[in-house]
Formats: sequence, C-alpha cells, structure tokens
Amino acid sequence: MHKALAFDIGGTKIYSTIVDEGGKLLYEPVKFSTPKDIDGIKKILISQIKKYEDEVDVVAIATAGAVNNENTAVIGSTGNLVEGYYTINFQNLSKKPVFIENDANSAAWAEYKIGASKGSKVSVMLTLGTGVGGGIIINDKILKGKSGAAGEMHFKMYPDHRRKCSCGSWDCYEAYASGTALKITAGEMLNDKNVTTYDVIEGVNNGNKNMLAVFDRWQNDITTGIIGLANIFDPDCIVLSGSMAQFVDSKKIEDAVNADIVTTPTSIRIATAGNFSGMIGVSLLAMENLKV
Amino acid sequence: MHKALAFDIGGTKIYSTIVDEGGKLLYEPVKFSTPKDIDGIKKILISQIKKYEDEVDVVAIATAGAVNNENTAVIGSTGNLVEGYYTINFQNLSKKPVFIENDANSAAWAEYKIGASKGSKVSVMLTLGTGVGGGIIINDKILKGKSGAAGEMHFKMYPDHRRKCSCGSWDCYEAYASGTALKITAGEMLNDKNVTTYDVIEGVNNGNKNMLAVFDRWQNDITTGIIGLANIFDPDCIVLSGSMAQFVDSKKIEDAVNADIVTTPTSIRIATAGNFSGMIGVSLLAMENLKV
Repeated sequence: MHKALAFDIGGTKIYSTIVDEGGKLLYEPVKFSTPKDIDGIKKILISQIKKYEDEVDVVAIATAGAVNNENTAVIGSTGNLVEGYYTINFQNLSKKPVFIENDANSAAWAEYKIGASKGSKVSVMLTLGTGVGGGIIINDKILKGKSGAAGEMHFKMYPDHRRKCSCGSWDCYEAYASGTALKITAGEMLNDKNVTTYDVIEGVNNGNKNMLAVFDRWQNDITTGIIGLANIFDPDCIVLSGSMAQFVDSKKIEDAVNADIVTTPTSIRIATAGNFSGMIGVSLLAMENLKV
Repeated sequence: MHKALAFDIGGTKIYSTIVDEGGKLLYEPVKFSTPKDIDGIKKILISQIKKYEDEVDVVAIATAGAVNNENTAVIGSTGNLVEGYYTINFQNLSKKPVFIENDANSAAWAEYKIGASKGSKVSVMLTLGTGVGGGIIINDKILKGKSGAAGEMHFKMYPDHRRKCSCGSWDCYEAYASGTALKITAGEMLNDKNVTTYDVIEGVNNGNKNMLAVFDRWQNDITTGIIGLANIFDPDCIVLSGSMAQFVDSKKIEDAVNADIVTTPTSIRIATAGNFSGMIGVSLLAMENLKV
C-alpha cells in the first residue's frame, strides 16, 4: 500500500503528516508557523522530507496559490504567501516524486473521494474561511483550466464597485461570503467597525436581532453565489467547508437555491473529510498519479 | 462521408438543412415559423425527415431548452417553447438515429470544431441575443452537468432584487447582458420605455452621448459577467456569438477582463461559425456519436 508524505502550506501555518491510500492520517499532523521567507519554508519542508522520505512513495503538497497542470510548480505570485514563493523548485526537495496541488482543489478531491461529495458526477466545493476557496470536480477530474488556475471564486456580486476584494479588484464573491466578509457586513450594517466575526456568531447564538440580521445578509450573499454556480454547473452537490461552514444553515440555503435555479435541484452539504482534507486530497491525487 | 439532416428549433423559427462531416451546409437552410403546438412542430420535422432521411446517416436537432445527457430528450419545460414540448418523442420521428443537443451547446461545439475557439482546451461561448445562452467546452467535452442542464448564464449581477429575469428569478446575467437587457438599461437610464435596442445602436453609430452611456453600461455589465467566468474556468477564450455580438468591442472587453482577473489572461473573440452554427455543431456531434 502506497503512502504519501503530506504538507499543507498556508499563509500562516504549515502542516505535515503521512497519509495512506485510504486517506487515513498515520499520525497527528505536526504544525509550523509559516516562515516569512522562502528559505525558511524550504528548511521546514526539507527537514520533514529527510526524516520521512524513505517511508513513503511520494511527497504530496497542498498549497495556497494556483498550481500548474503538470502539478509541479506554483503559478506566479499568490497574495497571502511570501515573495518569490513560486520560485521554489519543489521537485528538487526530495529523491521521491513531488506532487503539488492547490489547497482548495485538494480539499475538494478529499470530499469527492472519502467525504461529502463521494460519488458525484459534478460537484463544487466552497471553502468559507478567511477567504473563499473553490474546487470543482467534473467527471472524475478537477477543473484546472488552461493553466491550472481555475476554480477561483472571484465572480462579482455587484457590477459597480462597492467593496474592495483581497485580490485587488471589487465586489468578488470572496468579499461577501468569507469570514472576513461577515465582519465587514456587520461593520456596514451596524455602523461599527469593531464588531468581530466572533461577536456576530455569539450574537446569533444569543438571539440578538441585529446580529441575526447581519448573519442573514451574509448567508443570503453566500446563497446568491451558489445559485449562479448551480446554474452554470448543474452539480449533484455543493459542499461547504472551512471554518465558517459550521455556522451556516445548509438546509435553508439548499431550499433557497432550489427555488431559484433553472437547472435541476442540487444538494448543499457540509464537508465531512475533516480539517486536514487538503493533505488527504493531495495525497490521494499524488498516489493515483504514481499509477499513471 | 457521413451526413446529418439538421434542425434548429427555436421559439420563433425552425431551420433545417443537411450538414456534412466537415461542417458544410449542403443547401441553403429552409425556414419555418415555429408552430404554437407540438403537433405542428412534429409535422414540420416529419415532413423534412420523410423527404431526406434516406440521404443521411443521422437526424441532428439543436433545440432551445436543456437536453439530457443521453442526447435523446428535452428535460422538462422551457420558457420560450410551446407547452408540452418536452413530451415529443424525437427518437420515433425517423428510422435513422436522432441526436439532440441544446442550441447554445451546439453552437459552442461548432465554434470549437470549425470556428473561433478551435483548438481550445477550455472555452466558454456566450450567445448574446434576445436572451443569453451559454456553452462551455472542457477537454473536448461539453459541460453538461448531472442532468444535462449546465451552462445556464443565470448567475446574479446583484443580490438584492432589482431587475426581473425571463427565468422568473431576479438579476440574472441574462437580464443585463442580452439584447432585451440593452433596451431595459436604456429605459432606466433615459427614463424612456420607448427606446428600442435599435435606437441605442443607431445612437451609438451617430455619436449620441446618451446612447453611448447606455451602451457602455450594457457592455460593462457583459464584461462583469465575463470576469467571473474567466476566474471560474480559466479558459483559453470566451467566444461571443448571437445577434448582439457584432456590436460589442471585444478588444475593450478583453483588456478590462485581463486587468481584473486573478487567473491567467484570456482572449475574447467574436464567433466565426456563422448564423447556422447550432445546426453545424449538433450535426458534428451527432456524426461523431455514430462512431462511438
């Protein structure tokens, strides 16, 4: 049975563990703070690889940023990673094959293989966290686009420049559906910039009317985007993952979506592959790739 | 060399001709007004089929409405076709195989095989006409979704109910980017419901400032939607077809899209497969299907 040495490289944390062909983590993942320079990142990767590469068949890296169609390199610069990150030659870090995929695509693959979208012909996964990630799977393949950058949830919620997005443009879905967006929506509706995402969630739990209104607006924005995706992809299901997914009412969203779309009904599901779905997904992909 | 007896069934007109394997029309298409009942539609189809079925290998029908993944039947009811249209048993109309596909998907396939998106790994086609149609091709396959209904350009331009869409919902792309939408935008901006799409185009040609502003708003709305599609699909190109495509400035849209997206640059192109691209595309699909 194949095994993969897995990494998940994000803007603030790097995780690592070993994953088997069944998608099982062989030990509790170790956690590092993401260094502020590429040498620091490389050092962490190399130390883990030296320690474990003889035990595994492949090194599998889920990473922030778009990954090319060959799964060998990160394309261009990414907003929340260190300068020059894309210049890292991942292939040189190990004597074993190194396989890279975008973190949201990896997590979507884990949901498809062992989680909430298992058996789906067409599925869309949305990661609702600090930002919004996306992974789309069609006929047993991740939608990668011409260069590997597809699945970015930066479609517009308004055409007329209201809210700046982290990508530098305006009014992207991410700017209305992320955890950060919930805080911004609260700030706008309550005219109070100090309200946190946590305050809103706590207020909702306590039945606070203002916070319920803020939360509803945010959940309605999430729903609006899902309607568009459901009409474009006609998916079996849309999976919500990430730290904010636990707070949404998936049944309410599903009912609103299915009352609105022109395609056939879809199912809205909360992710089930767990917090380390990125490492699981990229490991499963990397091990399948060994057999090609 | 295979030949297909082709039909294009729309809400107001039905066209028919014979198409060869190179995508060539063997005679000038005949045109019928679409009857107001399904018996009338069947009568037209049968009369053409009786006349030509011995000369062809397959009957290929491009139609309004979503078509199932087996390309045998129309799914459910469609807004601009007669009641019960989906109950027609197309397979029974000929002794030759009958192959059906949605008209926008068919036109997208024609662009991909002999037109503007030839050679593209990922392409999106938008038909800007009375409504907005969509056809998406990924790795040599039309994106059909779980049931065949994918590619509907009913994603939202606003989350807060401003303009009714023909689909019964609110603020879909179609309601802002179609030819009908141009008239509505003119009505709103000029506070005059009598301005026609033709008036706007004529005004633009004469340098009328008001009409230029209306046209810019409409073209900006078209661009806004394309930005989202480019971020979702990372396509090689987006092809604009339909009666309104001739009026847009594709270079201007391309520049605006590429200045905004987080994926890699895409190309915006005007369709080249001609007015009968639906019949060409469905015929090519039907003849390829004979070989499977």
